[in-house]
Amino acid sequence: MSAKVGVIMGSKSDWDTMKLACDVLEELQIPYEKKVVSAHRTPDLMFEYAETAAERGLKVIIAGAGGAAHLPGMVAAKTILPVIGVPVKSSNLSGLDSLLSIVQMPGGIPVATVAIGNAGGTNAGLLAAQILGAFDPEAQARVQARRDRVAQEVLESSDTL
Amino acid sequence: MSAKVGVIMGSKSDWDTMKLACDVLEELQIPYEKKVVSAHRTPDLMFEYAETAAERGLKVIIAGAGGAAHLPGMVAAKTILPVIGVPVKSSNLSGLDSLLSIVQMPGGIPVATVAIGNAGGTNAGLLAAQILGAFDPEAQARVQARRDRVAQEVLESSDTL
Amino acid sequence: MSAKVGVIMGSKSDWDTMKLACDVLEELQIPYEKKVVSAHRTPDLMFEYAETAAERGLKVIIAGAGGAAHLPGMVAAKTILPVIGVPVKSSNLSGLDSLLSIVQMPGGIPVATVAIGNAGGTNAGLLAAQILGAFDPEAQARVQARRDRVAQEVLESSDTL
Amino acid sequence: MSAKVGVIMGSKSDWDTMKLACDVLEELQIPYEKKVVSAHRTPDLMFEYAETAAERGLKVIIAGAGGAAHLPGMVAAKTILPVIGVPVKSSNLSGLDSLLSIVQMPGGIPVATVAIGNAGGTNAGLLAAQILGAFDPEAQARVQARRDRVAQEVLESSDTL
Amino acid sequence: MSAKVGVIMGSKSDWDTMKLACDVLEELQIPYEKKVVSAHRTPDLMFEYAETAAERGLKVIIAGAGGAAHLPGMVAAKTILPVIGVPVKSSNLSGLDSLLSIVQMPGGIPVATVAIGNAGGTNAGLLAAQILGAFDPEAQARVQARRDRVAQEVLESSDTL
Amino acid sequence: MSAKVGVIMGSKSDWDTMKLACDVLEELQIPYEKKVVSAHRTPDLMFEYAETAAERGLKVIIAGAGGAAHLPGMVAAKTILPVIGVPVKSSNLSGLDSLLSIVQMPGGIPVATVAIGNAGGTNAGLLAAQILGAFDPEAQARVQARRDRVAQEVLESSDTL
Amino acid sequence: MSAKVGVIMGSKSDWDTMKLACDVLEELQIPYEKKVVSAHRTPDLMFEYAETAAERGLKVIIAGAGGAAHLPGMVAAKTILPVIGVPVKSSNLSGLDSLLSIVQMPGGIPVATVAIGNAGGTNAGLLAAQILGAFDPEAQARVQARRDRVAQEVLESSDTL
Amino acid sequence: MSAKVGVIMGSKSDWDTMKLACDVLEELQIPYEKKVVSAHRTPDLMFEYAETAAERGLKVIIAGAGGAAHLPGMVAAKTILPVIGVPVKSSNLSGLDSLLSIVQMPGGIPVATVAIGNAGGTNAGLLAAQILGAFDPEAQARVQARRDRVAQEVLESSDTL
Repeated sequence: MSAKVGVIMGSKSDWDTMKLACDVLEELQIPYEKKVVSAHRTPDLMFEYAETAAERGLKVIIAGAGGAAHLPGMVAAKTILPVIGVPVKSSNLSGLDSLLSIVQMPGGIPVATVAIGNAGGTNAGLLAAQILGAFDPEAQARVQARRDRVAQEVLESSDTL
Repeated sequence: MSAKVGVIMGSKSDWDTMKLACDVLEELQIPYEKKVVSAHRTPDLMFEYAETAAERGLKVIIAGAGGAAHLPGMVAAKTILPVIGVPVKSSNLSGLDSLLSIVQMPGGIPVATVAIGNAGGTNAGLLAAQILGAFDPEAQARVQARRDRVAQEVLESSDTL
Repeated sequence: MSAKVGVIMGSKSDWDTMKLACDVLEELQIPYEKKVVSAHRTPDLMFEYAETAAERGLKVIIAGAGGAAHLPGMVAAKTILPVIGVPVKSSNLSGLDSLLSIVQMPGGIPVATVAIGNAGGTNAGLLAAQILGAFDPEAQARVQARRDRVAQEVLESSDTL
Repeated sequence: MSAKVGVIMGSKSDWDTMKLACDVLEELQIPYEKKVVSAHRTPDLMFEYAETAAERGLKVIIAGAGGAAHLPGMVAAKTILPVIGVPVKSSNLSGLDSLLSIVQMPGGIPVATVAIGNAGGTNAGLLAAQILGAFDPEAQARVQARRDRVAQEVLESSDTL
Repeated sequence: MSAKVGVIMGSKSDWDTMKLACDVLEELQIPYEKKVVSAHRTPDLMFEYAETAAERGLKVIIAGAGGAAHLPGMVAAKTILPVIGVPVKSSNLSGLDSLLSIVQMPGGIPVATVAIGNAGGTNAGLLAAQILGAFDPEAQARVQARRDRVAQEVLESSDTL
Repeated sequence: MSAKVGVIMGSKSDWDTMKLACDVLEELQIPYEKKVVSAHRTPDLMFEYAETAAERGLKVIIAGAGGAAHLPGMVAAKTILPVIGVPVKSSNLSGLDSLLSIVQMPGGIPVATVAIGNAGGTNAGLLAAQILGAFDPEAQARVQARRDRVAQEVLESSDTL
Repeated sequence: MSAKVGVIMGSKSDWDTMKLACDVLEELQIPYEKKVVSAHRTPDLMFEYAETAAERGLKVIIAGAGGAAHLPGMVAAKTILPVIGVPVKSSNLSGLDSLLSIVQMPGGIPVATVAIGNAGGTNAGLLAAQILGAFDPEAQARVQARRDRVAQEVLESSDTL
Repeated sequence: MSAKVGVIMGSKSDWDTMKLACDVLEELQIPYEKKVVSAHRTPDLMFEYAETAAERGLKVIIAGAGGAAHLPGMVAAKTILPVIGVPVKSSNLSGLDSLLSIVQMPGGIPVATVAIGNAGGTNAGLLAAQILGAFDPEAQARVQARRDRVAQEVLESSDTL
């Protein structure tokens, strides 16, 4: 089945965080593709990726980057699809620079920003699934089942304090 | 036609920002509803709103709040729909508190966070439209037309420098 | 003797910090209960916990959470008891996000916020004891005795520089 | 009836914020006293105020200050009563300095910190009332009534969007 | 004479700041061109502008933008010319977001970042002139003359204290 | 010879930083005393220390503390001597809280604040020596000799790049 | 009588803040001189001023600057006298940049930093007076008298709440 | 061939970062010199270095420093050449202090600031090369070749996810 979600990242070093998004998509049986696409080092590839995303059947793009993180916003500028931005933790400013570079988009081109780092990686996968799920009851049911399981784990964890 | 997007805010004082989301939805002919729902002052109403959102036909919820902004995250915890969070500018910390309270969600429950303040208000409406548009070619076309018009305005603005 | 203080936390990973609150309560012979209650993953449990806290005899609730830390504020919204919030150190922003998410509550619903991390854990226990102690001379005397002992330790530490 | 709550502030310029705490206490019929007590300019008065607070019948102290805000923490060091700290908005750093100076107390001496500025002023009064209310059903009922009224106002505000 | 410096900005609202760069270039008799080029609203124009800049005879590009300011970095990714980035003051975070979005470029693609706001506007013009001046003694002499004049003004200002 | 400089710190855990101040004073042959004096845990000792400092012959006080660092400012409020404040690095906010708590003193009571952490420890000793040196040519000469030696070390370090 | 304190500032626009230092010195009858000396625009004047300060009889230098505030630290590098740094409020970052540029000096060259803005202006004058006062009982007595008067004003202000 | 770029740093401890600039210059065959020059510990050397830089044939200066990083700005004040500033990561504030001390220069004296830490080290070398390259086609071609190689590496890294 062709990919519904495109997962891209600015550098291979972002993979530890972005793999968490892929793990969630796999767990929820949502077909996806993954690729390193650098806004600054491969700008033409980035534009081509964004321009062809919709016609290739993608419904959502997840883009992760750190520091002066331009990938999510630039991809959002070149596609009409919803783009989820993951602020990867940066080595010096702990991802605060990544977060502000991604979330503070000017009126006109939104990026759906999630948390800095690993929580953001996981949540990007879940947010993509919830967007698809709003129009796909089966996907939505799988997200709900995952939530129910996690809630159960929280309840049980109390006994181990 | 029944509402596809629910626009809620923690206080009537958030309306100036959230009205911009409603303006975009209106302009793009996307049916929506709007309501003041306070996480802290009307918590039961908030839960009820979130719990019934999907069954009432909503596909996306936009929630705006300022300061210790818990509304978007708590609504997200109680619905399987994608939730867009708008960090309203706060009086003392300029919305940095609103932003961190909304975007730094733990793994498991995502909030699609947009920019602080007015840019965020506008972009929340656009992001909702793009999510719907991924499954509705007509809505998508209207978003694209808006982008084309804005691009034209940018081009023309150069002549007035 | 039934619990006077409820100690809750958003995740089992908060236990290292919250255990310090429990240690103080134990040392001061104040009966307490402890539980993992997640605002985002078990929202209904959270509401139920908060709603029944007063009738179960609790006088103070201590709630610890990290990141977009909504637990203290949401519990405060659902109980008339004083709620002490502990900003647990977060992995990326060192607890600044936790602090702002907890302390910047809007007018109407206060959270008594203490320091980020371990100092906050200890002080949450002491603050609960001081609140009880304002109406219970014996508890107050035990807090005072602890203070006297700590002061003595400070005085003696000078000799070891 | 003798004062149950002492409201102090580091400078008369803090009065706009601290008056909000007094307004709430008045509304909730909780007897209080108010005074300018500067940690840096009248340190001896501060110590005397704190040392005698409990024996004069106070149950809670509310202390507001801005900038390098030492008043709440120093009063807390000299009394066994619970101390609520209000970070007054400062002219240059918007109260972030006030907040950190008040909330980041070392383990041993807690300060119950509320929000920066006006929200904090109001909430300091409410928190004091909730602390008293945990041991005084009538005070607690008045706090609850105030909450019910505010909730009603939120509900009605939706109609005016 | 054909333009040596290209001055671009993400929005016409950046003009107040970017005009200061143009004023300096005019004063120093350095030929320049100016244009509104939005990274997010006119991405293709931006790429075309950057790609053709060198062949059109430009030696330096000055790019100003605010918020999630991607223009300087993306232009830098598409040209081999030195790019000077001006962080325009943003409405909510005072340009801290603009600064981090511009300066925190990953290794490989530098942006020569100057100060936030008006000082940055002026200094972008001067930096461009100094770059040209390193290879053009006349331009360098004009920069030096401007410095001498400003130093004289400082000396004289002492008498008016 | 009686102590000219008093070095105090809020906790024995500050010793690593404050020892650097003592090392400098020793190296420059300036008589000093050292002591743990906690603003929050031994407030009366702190007041007594500050009140008697001048009459005991001290000329300068160096006070180091971390977090909500009230020691330097409170000592300054109780002595007419110049007080140097050292913001000790805190475990969660890297000393930013310490810095703001020390430096942002209200008009009326200054604290001479130096850098966060170890650089601040060393510089506190040097600043005390420079203050004494302004009235003691021999002490001043020793500070100058130290500077000359350090400059020489810098010059030589170039050869080892 | 020849000046004991030199008050310098990086720009005439710093005068509003630095005048407060001069006002205090005047009030305390401490002879001083004042001058605009810019680190960046008149670097040679700055070096000459610093190098000759001690021989001209100055005992303390007060230096105020904003933004990338290099004046206090560079003057400190060129004189053996104690240098007090005043972080002038900057237009974009509210003086946080000024503060960090002044206070974070490396080990070896201290700057006695006071608060951002007006409080810092006043306190720079007082700190200079306290430094002189440690060796001049009359100056010290005048500082003490000022403190007593201010304390009295605080006490009286309580009656006007 | 005589040096075209001068690489200086405030301390030998900055070498790890500044070596990356030298590595790039070496790789691109751009002649350079390197030296430790401390603004605070060897101010006269710094002035002499800056004053003679242009006449010695340098075209660009790269200056790295941490904390209250005054080296780049002061060198810029004493030379008409373009100065690139590298904010070295500081031990306590992660280089945020270095960044603000370097980038927030007042109108009149620009510093071309690059990213904090290692990315900034590399990019300083590249920016110097691009400045030279704007007037030296061979140097420009070598920068372009390096970019092409890096782009290829990014493309290939996708296959290893």
